[in-house]
Amino acid sequence: MINDDCIIALATASGSGAIAIIRISGEEAITICDSHFKSVSHKKLASQKTHTIHLGHIIKNEKALDEVLVSVFKNPKSYTGENVVEISCHGSSFIQQEIIQLFLRAGCRIASPGEFTLRAFLNGKLDLSQAEAVADLIASDNEASHQVAMQQMRGGFSNEIKALRDELLNFASLIELELDFAEEDVEFANRDQFKDLINRITKVLKHLIDSFAIGNVIKNGIPVAIVGEPNVGKSTLLNALLNEDKAIVSDIAGTTRDAIEDELNIGGIGFRFIDTAGIRDTKDIVESIGIKKTFEKIDQSQVVIYLFDGFNSQDNLEQVKIEIEKIKNKNPLKPLLIIANKIDKLDDIQLAKLTTEIKNINLLSAKTGFGVDSLKDKLLNFVNTGALRNNETIVTNSRHYDALLKALEEIQKVQQGMDSNLSGDLLAIDIRQALYHFGEITGEITNDDLLGNIFANFCIGK
Amino acid sequence: MINDDCIIALATASGSGAIAIIRISGEEAITICDSHFKSVSHKKLASQKTHTIHLGHIIKNEKALDEVLVSVFKNPKSYTGENVVEISCHGSSFIQQEIIQLFLRAGCRIASPGEFTLRAFLNGKLDLSQAEAVADLIASDNEASHQVAMQQMRGGFSNEIKALRDELLNFASLIELELDFAEEDVEFANRDQFKDLINRITKVLKHLIDSFAIGNVIKNGIPVAIVGEPNVGKSTLLNALLNEDKAIVSDIAGTTRDAIEDELNIGGIGFRFIDTAGIRDTKDIVESIGIKKTFEKIDQSQVVIYLFDGFNSQDNLEQVKIEIEKIKNKNPLKPLLIIANKIDKLDDIQLAKLTTEIKNINLLSAKTGFGVDSLKDKLLNFVNTGALRNNETIVTNSRHYDALLKALEEIQKVQQGMDSNLSGDLLAIDIRQALYHFGEITGEITNDDLLGNIFANFCIGK
Repeated sequence: MINDDCIIALATASGSGAIAIIRISGEEAITICDSHFKSVSHKKLASQKTHTIHLGHIIKNEKALDEVLVSVFKNPKSYTGENVVEISCHGSSFIQQEIIQLFLRAGCRIASPGEFTLRAFLNGKLDLSQAEAVADLIASDNEASHQVAMQQMRGGFSNEIKALRDELLNFASLIELELDFAEEDVEFANRDQFKDLINRITKVLKHLIDSFAIGNVIKNGIPVAIVGEPNVGKSTLLNALLNEDKAIVSDIAGTTRDAIEDELNIGGIGFRFIDTAGIRDTKDIVESIGIKKTFEKIDQSQVVIYLFDGFNSQDNLEQVKIEIEKIKNKNPLKPLLIIANKIDKLDDIQLAKLTTEIKNINLLSAKTGFGVDSLKDKLLNFVNTGALRNNETIVTNSRHYDALLKALEEIQKVQQGMDSNLSGDLLAIDIRQALYHFGEITGEITNDDLLGNIFANFCIGK
Repeated sequence: MINDDCIIALATASGSGAIAIIRISGEEAITICDSHFKSVSHKKLASQKTHTIHLGHIIKNEKALDEVLVSVFKNPKSYTGENVVEISCHGSSFIQQEIIQLFLRAGCRIASPGEFTLRAFLNGKLDLSQAEAVADLIASDNEASHQVAMQQMRGGFSNEIKALRDELLNFASLIELELDFAEEDVEFANRDQFKDLINRITKVLKHLIDSFAIGNVIKNGIPVAIVGEPNVGKSTLLNALLNEDKAIVSDIAGTTRDAIEDELNIGGIGFRFIDTAGIRDTKDIVESIGIKKTFEKIDQSQVVIYLFDGFNSQDNLEQVKIEIEKIKNKNPLKPLLIIANKIDKLDDIQLAKLTTEIKNINLLSAKTGFGVDSLKDKLLNFVNTGALRNNETIVTNSRHYDALLKALEEIQKVQQGMDSNLSGDLLAIDIRQALYHFGEITGEITNDDLLGNIFANFCIGK
């Protein structure tokens, strides 16, 4: 899988822009670039220092193809750890293609997805969990997922795991050494210190495993089912929640995103709002299929919003109460937000009636904005954002989660073995297994299939 | 219009990529960047040399927002001629936005379209026609338009225009000087040399003006009307012409273009194929509207292809001949390519009949590829590609074309004035007018409206 050949790819987003960056990495990257680059200083790139930028022309068939800036990074001081050049050219698709074709003919080949980062990993510039964080970082679209990816890229929990692994490895060696001296019945490994280590490891693993629930939420967003009849104001509610962020986005011309439909970013956390058809009782068969689907969507969500029209439901509050009870009965443990919309139309007496009759009601006027902030706070309260605020380590990657679960299982076997005074040779086997799973996280233990899987999810050029 | 403030923009294509470049230009660009950048070397960017690259973190609220590379360019050795930093960050839209927002709060403002290039022009890094070539270069999508834009960016005809303008300016000064000594009847300006200059200028202007026809074709593609009934193989023909380029495009993963429908790139020249409904005679009113439209499309095109089914038309060749005559009669000067398709189905006798009955026929089997190369050659022959091959100067910009026409008009007035021994003071007025139009091309004469118009067509970040 590992090659010393030169890889090339467009590193910036595809399409036309002011400039585009084409990246080449490999032993010969700088000399290959020199073969088609004419610097205005008439010096070869190979003679230049690392981390310097050079103005010149890319030459094809003795004609200038483009005026470019070439950045030179010399092994090992580059992203991949190899020699790297980055060609900053004019951003037309035509020029991008011509330059890439030129260097393909000069001996480069198109990089596979994630191959630059794979090389960085293989050359020891990043560990595996850091490499994975690079893809997460590029995919991050809100503050929380970005923060977690940054933390992981800067070492995150892999440093902690590595330190524990080293300690465990040390004990494993001592215990295995004891086996060599079995006849003499010595104990190189201090059992009390070892127990202490196992306790610490168990605590850390459990903490990390627990963090996956929030990590998953941060990475994938929190699914929220909105239950409500048509015309109770579902889309007005979503717009009211969206309002603030929308303004920020439109501030920056040229960076407009696709219209956000049901995925909103509230306080840096992604919420995925799932519209449902409501659960009003009916004899219509088509409608009752709708109700069945609503309950399915409630099952898939982590939070349920029951939204009703506080004005038009005044004479029909019994029906509202029945529906609320139905949701509660079917999903006793799921957080439920009961919201009466359109309360700007109500007078004080009507308001009092609403709040008395329906417990834990939230008053909202999506139209005037009343109650929107309080609703945001309540949604955020469902997420344990404490961990996030305190900069705690959070696991978001399911591969890491699996490895941590397996490591914990083995560590618990070691623990049990210790408690039942298991012999050193049997203990050593469980310790080795735990070490294996630790190593899987940071990439000290890998295989080609695993690497192939991880890096296939990257974009080309990274 | 000119400000010393710091401008910022995303310089790479919008959307997610492996990396993105954010560009800041202005007196304070480097110090503003320093305020939110922590280099791994702990050195300030302001203390670094120009054209160097620095690894570090963008810091927001004391937290690392992203690990980035910052390129430093110092006034005047930068694209704009000002201090410039380019921040190469991870390519998520979220990170791009966060970094831009951070620097907006630090005192930058979003650049208007083309503002970086406008500053380069105002700081004398480029003349106006070179600045315009930057936009053309980014928009270029085939070899010819790219080559012309490159030539213009590297000086192109503006150097020639500048040299002639300087000579003309010199004569203008001398003639105006004569006016001061009118009573003494001296001649500072050698009239023979002046006539020679006017002749040279006229020749250059005419040559450049003529080149606009080909320049326009290169920039906008050559419109080709395809006249033919349904099922004669119009789309098979387009696919056959497209074949080669399609294969090249699909070679580069991640750089796929939008599906090319009727615009094909043949030998580096863009051809826009315009489908028509054919001109078969009919009594049907709807059909005859179709025929009228076909002739309109023929009017708009520069080349006409008459395509018919060589196999199914065997017993109907009279009809084919009538239609060909009709096109020829209506458009006697327009190049016409007569093509019989599906000739793979014909035997030798049928082929002989076809070639005897219809003059100047081109035999084609779009299915097998027979005749495709010869067709490409013929299409290219309609374009005067000689100028392109010989690296001659070609005018593609209609603003330049207009200025050249006006300059020629004034020069011709000067010529006439010389021939009729016009007095120096009247001659001087026409010369000044010609000088004005020369200056318009290179930007020695500008006004804010003109600049506003030119740069408004740029993309943001350039």
